[in-house]
Amino acid sequence: MRLAILGAGDVGRSVADLASEYGHEVVALADSSSATVDSSGIDVDSALEAKLSGGQVGEDDPETVFDTDYDVLVEATPTTLDDAEPGFSHVKRALEADRHVVLANKGPVAERYEELRALEADSAGSIRFEATVGGAIPVLSTIEDSTPQAVTAVRGVLNGTANFILTRMAAEGLDYEHVLAEAQDLGVAEADPTFDVDGTDAALKFVILANVLSEGGFALEDATVDGIQNVPGSALDLAAEDGQTIRLIGEATREGVRVGPRLVPENSALAVTGTRNIVQIETKNAGSLHSSGRGAGGPETATAVLSDVGRLPEL
Amino acid sequence: MRLAILGAGDVGRSVADLASEYGHEVVALADSSSATVDSSGIDVDSALEAKLSGGQVGEDDPETVFDTDYDVLVEATPTTLDDAEPGFSHVKRALEADRHVVLANKGPVAERYEELRALEADSAGSIRFEATVGGAIPVLSTIEDSTPQAVTAVRGVLNGTANFILTRMAAEGLDYEHVLAEAQDLGVAEADPTFDVDGTDAALKFVILANVLSEGGFALEDATVDGIQNVPGSALDLAAEDGQTIRLIGEATREGVRVGPRLVPENSALAVTGTRNIVQIETKNAGSLHSSGRGAGGPETATAVLSDVGRLPEL
Repeated sequence: MRLAILGAGDVGRSVADLASEYGHEVVALADSSSATVDSSGIDVDSALEAKLSGGQVGEDDPETVFDTDYDVLVEATPTTLDDAEPGFSHVKRALEADRHVVLANKGPVAERYEELRALEADSAGSIRFEATVGGAIPVLSTIEDSTPQAVTAVRGVLNGTANFILTRMAAEGLDYEHVLAEAQDLGVAEADPTFDVDGTDAALKFVILANVLSEGGFALEDATVDGIQNVPGSALDLAAEDGQTIRLIGEATREGVRVGPRLVPENSALAVTGTRNIVQIETKNAGSLHSSGRGAGGPETATAVLSDVGRLPEL
Repeated sequence: MRLAILGAGDVGRSVADLASEYGHEVVALADSSSATVDSSGIDVDSALEAKLSGGQVGEDDPETVFDTDYDVLVEATPTTLDDAEPGFSHVKRALEADRHVVLANKGPVAERYEELRALEADSAGSIRFEATVGGAIPVLSTIEDSTPQAVTAVRGVLNGTANFILTRMAAEGLDYEHVLAEAQDLGVAEADPTFDVDGTDAALKFVILANVLSEGGFALEDATVDGIQNVPGSALDLAAEDGQTIRLIGEATREGVRVGPRLVPENSALAVTGTRNIVQIETKNAGSLHSSGRGAGGPETATAVLSDVGRLPEL
């Protein structure tokens, strides 16, 4: 398939880098202010080098991306809330042009799910968004193959930054501020870590899961969300005395979405360590399926995008 | 899709039972000596009742199954080794009639993989076999979506009977013979438990995985296999003193297949308990993905069969 990639951050760049390994061709790569477009395939190495050294991916106008001949638009621009723009409009343009869309951008899928599905119904193209939930862990395709109706709930740890911080607080007896600074030094937390530590990032993912289970009906505002900024070191010490620890756990059912710090037994599956993520999918006929792995990272998330591309039908 | 189901054991019966929930129709169900066939859809409840009370699924001749109009042959007859008959011939007939095949029967996929793929190449139908490895756990579809070339190894616990026995031996300090008898009472081990306790069942699954990674080249005879019958209770006690335990672990790489009892840390992901299974898929770009769940059981395995049916293209 020919991929037009919007977004040249970690994910967009990794998709461009790995595309040929999966048998696909990149015909466009764009960030907010620049682009490189070539219907016979862009020079990926040059574009990545240019981005990393100078900040631009090429000399073309990002607008020209939509004029290219492509099969799949990869929407990997930063997640935005509420109207989820400009990501939503990117998806709309591609579907209206009867092209496929694969999203890594959570915004449109969490905030305007039914509108996306309506656009998809009127298009020859399909939308897929494995990369929006759990990075490399195949959560959505597992639910899809089980059929959503057979899934009763999805629970787990879907933010690696928050999980890393809680793991380190428990392991070292340090307080939140101290460990957050450590996480930022390591690149595990961003300079502005708000969405990771206040639970928003995890909530967006569980809202997407609730939308998949219920075929829509949820947006971020419907989720009950608590972050980890107020978890004191003493709470983790107390928990440890009881063989327990604290993790930022989310849950999606057809009734709603909740995210917050919870006590879990130290040796339970949910007590993943470091930046690892885990999902527990509860099914009607097959008990509970647990999947864990790397929930974030350029290459990790790119593998989810490319798995989705592999499941798209020929146009 | 219209399903013709060969095999009326736990798996065949569960597939028949759950088919309509997944939107499919059962046009035939057969065991070794009887069948019920109806191109407009069989009466599943009657057939299952007849099987459970009298031993026959219906009044028809099993031969007539292949004369029915069906889309997918579900091969759920007992696993046999070496020539993998009669399962292999069932698959051959369906593919030669340009029909799809979904297997729960490990024999043909472990022992005659390249022949199956050659028949598939000449057919309008496709073969899928998620149910042969890990029951409800989506192992093969995860490898397929990651692309097999991106997977370097698969490791794990894929036999619940052996795992249950080792878990109980460690927990209770009992010896193998004692716990085996308990497992048989509970229905976790069969009257003839040989293939479960000698490692053959696990080895067949890892041989299938090696065939998927390497596009063929392996059969059961190529695997190095040790079972659990000679693990003494004292070995588990010694391991526990070191914070370790013993599990029947298998590994498949492009180099080969090994199954045997191994020491693992008590709190490691591989130390699943009871009859649960776990698979660790090592990938080039996304680290290691762990998936655990119920590896066996009628409904559990049926969900894997029905997931496969859902991924087949229209004929």
